[in-house]
Amino acid sequence: MVEQTVAETIGTMARHAKKAARQVAGADTATKNALLQQVAEILDTRREMIQQENRKDIDDARSKGSSAAMIDRLTLSDQVFAAMRQGLREVCDLPDPVGSIEQLRRRPNGLMVGRMRVPLGVIGMVYESRPNVTIDAAALCFKAGNSVILRGGSEALRSNLALAQVLQEALAAQGLDPHVVQVVPTTDREAILALLQQEESLDLIIPRGGEGLIRFVTENSRIPVLKHYKGVCHLFVDQDADLERATPIIINSKVQRPGVCNALEGLLVHRGVAARYLPTIVAALQGHGVELFGCATTRSICPQMEPAAEHHWGTEFLDLRLCIKVVDSLAEAMDYIERFGSRHTEAILTENYETAQTFVNGVDASAVVVNAATRFNDGGQLGLGAEIGISTTKLHAYGPMGLEELTTRKFVVFGSGQVRE
Amino acid sequence: MVEQTVAETIGTMARHAKKAARQVAGADTATKNALLQQVAEILDTRREMIQQENRKDIDDARSKGSSAAMIDRLTLSDQVFAAMRQGLREVCDLPDPVGSIEQLRRRPNGLMVGRMRVPLGVIGMVYESRPNVTIDAAALCFKAGNSVILRGGSEALRSNLALAQVLQEALAAQGLDPHVVQVVPTTDREAILALLQQEESLDLIIPRGGEGLIRFVTENSRIPVLKHYKGVCHLFVDQDADLERATPIIINSKVQRPGVCNALEGLLVHRGVAARYLPTIVAALQGHGVELFGCATTRSICPQMEPAAEHHWGTEFLDLRLCIKVVDSLAEAMDYIERFGSRHTEAILTENYETAQTFVNGVDASAVVVNAATRFNDGGQLGLGAEIGISTTKLHAYGPMGLEELTTRKFVVFGSGQVRE
Repeated sequence: MVEQTVAETIGTMARHAKKAARQVAGADTATKNALLQQVAEILDTRREMIQQENRKDIDDARSKGSSAAMIDRLTLSDQVFAAMRQGLREVCDLPDPVGSIEQLRRRPNGLMVGRMRVPLGVIGMVYESRPNVTIDAAALCFKAGNSVILRGGSEALRSNLALAQVLQEALAAQGLDPHVVQVVPTTDREAILALLQQEESLDLIIPRGGEGLIRFVTENSRIPVLKHYKGVCHLFVDQDADLERATPIIINSKVQRPGVCNALEGLLVHRGVAARYLPTIVAALQGHGVELFGCATTRSICPQMEPAAEHHWGTEFLDLRLCIKVVDSLAEAMDYIERFGSRHTEAILTENYETAQTFVNGVDASAVVVNAATRFNDGGQLGLGAEIGISTTKLHAYGPMGLEELTTRKFVVFGSGQVRE
Repeated sequence: MVEQTVAETIGTMARHAKKAARQVAGADTATKNALLQQVAEILDTRREMIQQENRKDIDDARSKGSSAAMIDRLTLSDQVFAAMRQGLREVCDLPDPVGSIEQLRRRPNGLMVGRMRVPLGVIGMVYESRPNVTIDAAALCFKAGNSVILRGGSEALRSNLALAQVLQEALAAQGLDPHVVQVVPTTDREAILALLQQEESLDLIIPRGGEGLIRFVTENSRIPVLKHYKGVCHLFVDQDADLERATPIIINSKVQRPGVCNALEGLLVHRGVAARYLPTIVAALQGHGVELFGCATTRSICPQMEPAAEHHWGTEFLDLRLCIKVVDSLAEAMDYIERFGSRHTEAILTENYETAQTFVNGVDASAVVVNAATRFNDGGQLGLGAEIGISTTKLHAYGPMGLEELTTRKFVVFGSGQVRE
């Protein structure tokens, strides 16, 4: 038997996925939910097999000297299994967007015109670490009526293939085409490149991981890509902020989970409240172990911190570090955000109506927040249910992407003999 | 003075456009409408100058032996001026999508979360022939709060630059940044290439023209592209069709304007009505001068036509030519459309409820039409007001793109001190 090249394998997978997409696009909600429940059940019965494969990945990672954080992200612990099953239940409970018709209106000539939500088709997902993404992403793509090709990190290959086996057993048990969900069975980077060339079959690529992976995918893809590069999120304490409320919001934004994309990376403080408020917030942040980098004005008020270097502004620390800058006005804060922000999440604390409106209307970011923590830019928190990622590009989706963002809308036209004049 | 290279010129234009985008994004509806009215007025006062420049383009085109159709598309006649002014008035009358907040809902923790329509930013438009597109496209992009860089066909360069002058005079008269609308002042293909690399400044590229141009743009762009390659539209006459109504719909779809993308290119007829209906529709089509290519079954009923060759199926004729095929079932019609359609417009004629539902739900096209002509897949006809193009890709927009499709939505979050648990 002649062995297939990587490119041939990927080409075959893509064609199978496209064929399967037609089946899953037509599946009703009950069928889709039954599949998701079946996956949850098989995850339970197959846990031992999966954890065994997972341990091999972990052993390899250890022997390569991976960090503890990396090992932690790789591990399919019992808690991670519980979270995957919980995630599947939540996706089950989400309303099915497919087939709903929006804006159905009668035209002057009697035509009824509406826009029907339909699946995108075939989605390619390229991600690093966390093998549980294999289940989470497959569930969302599937519930939205798409087929999906998953390409996880090479360090998690055995875990991902074990999870793929669960997904395909569940598909077979429900009488569905097993090519609805496929995992790329190789770790070659060539496989990603080949996947990105399948523009005849794939409709969307979603990369999730570090900036390097995302740039690689964007630069090489012939297929539309939805991505976010990074989250450099700011919070502006206006002169009219309620300062009592400010501290818990800032601490929550910075400290609760500093390693995620909606964590706070830059604090802007209006000159009018700087002398009054900076000592309080600086003490609170330092009390939580946050290393601070201040502008000259900030340090003239609170000298007990490092001076900010030019490269600190606009940096995504993903760590207990934070820049602080005093600004003269709302306009200066907005200019700063325009220059150093990453279009992810930007927040203002103010009790002034006009100031809040100006900020909300004028700041260009996927989420603009008033008087709350930046940490709310998340599909679950914003009411989308689960999310498959957060887009900081503006086409198709801007912000968290849930089930609806995994669909598109076609026009449906119900006539009664109309012709065009 | 050192002359700029094409790439430098385009880079400068892109940066100016990005700066201008922030101004136009914040412009209110009254300001935007005043600008559009101003453009209509200046078009009138400057008509002679523009037509003089246009004549130079026409003379050049003639001396190069361009076809009469090409010259016609290039000519800015008084009627075309009237149409441009009418177009500007219509865009004025369209509701401004920018700033409207959709789905504003209260979350369990009291956060108010909504999605605000905001401009995309900077749009690049690459098109061929028809210089009036310069005005039409600029008006739509501007009304949706975007700045735009226009790159028309080289044969229309002088006409486009004259129209650009009108646009910039109007912008200056309204105190707006003239870089809100810019026309690339050169015909080098290098200019298109340079434009497609400006991913730091541009948010979207819309190509309009032949398949060659669109492929060139898609293959070379680092910026998201919304496009349609071609319109291979079908109409299926079901066994339960009202045959009296069928003929005017088919004639309208094929004959009214055969050169456009929503014209009919393939007719499918259910075997159950083929013997009864084919003689009627074949006579009607031939009476309108349509050249027909039939499958073997079609020709066994109506021998007075050419046999269809394999390459006829799925061809975009853009002319008074049409394929006819007899199919055994709805499923066969849908399989044929899946294989040969171009995801543009697909229609069915049937009085059967179940058949209509199956077709509408199952056919993948930007518009699926029941009992009406394919010619209705058009922004104006479907209720979007004007359109800037028709997308047959599924990301962001599928089908006609109006003002709303030239915007995106950001999340707005109104809190009262919420932090994340």
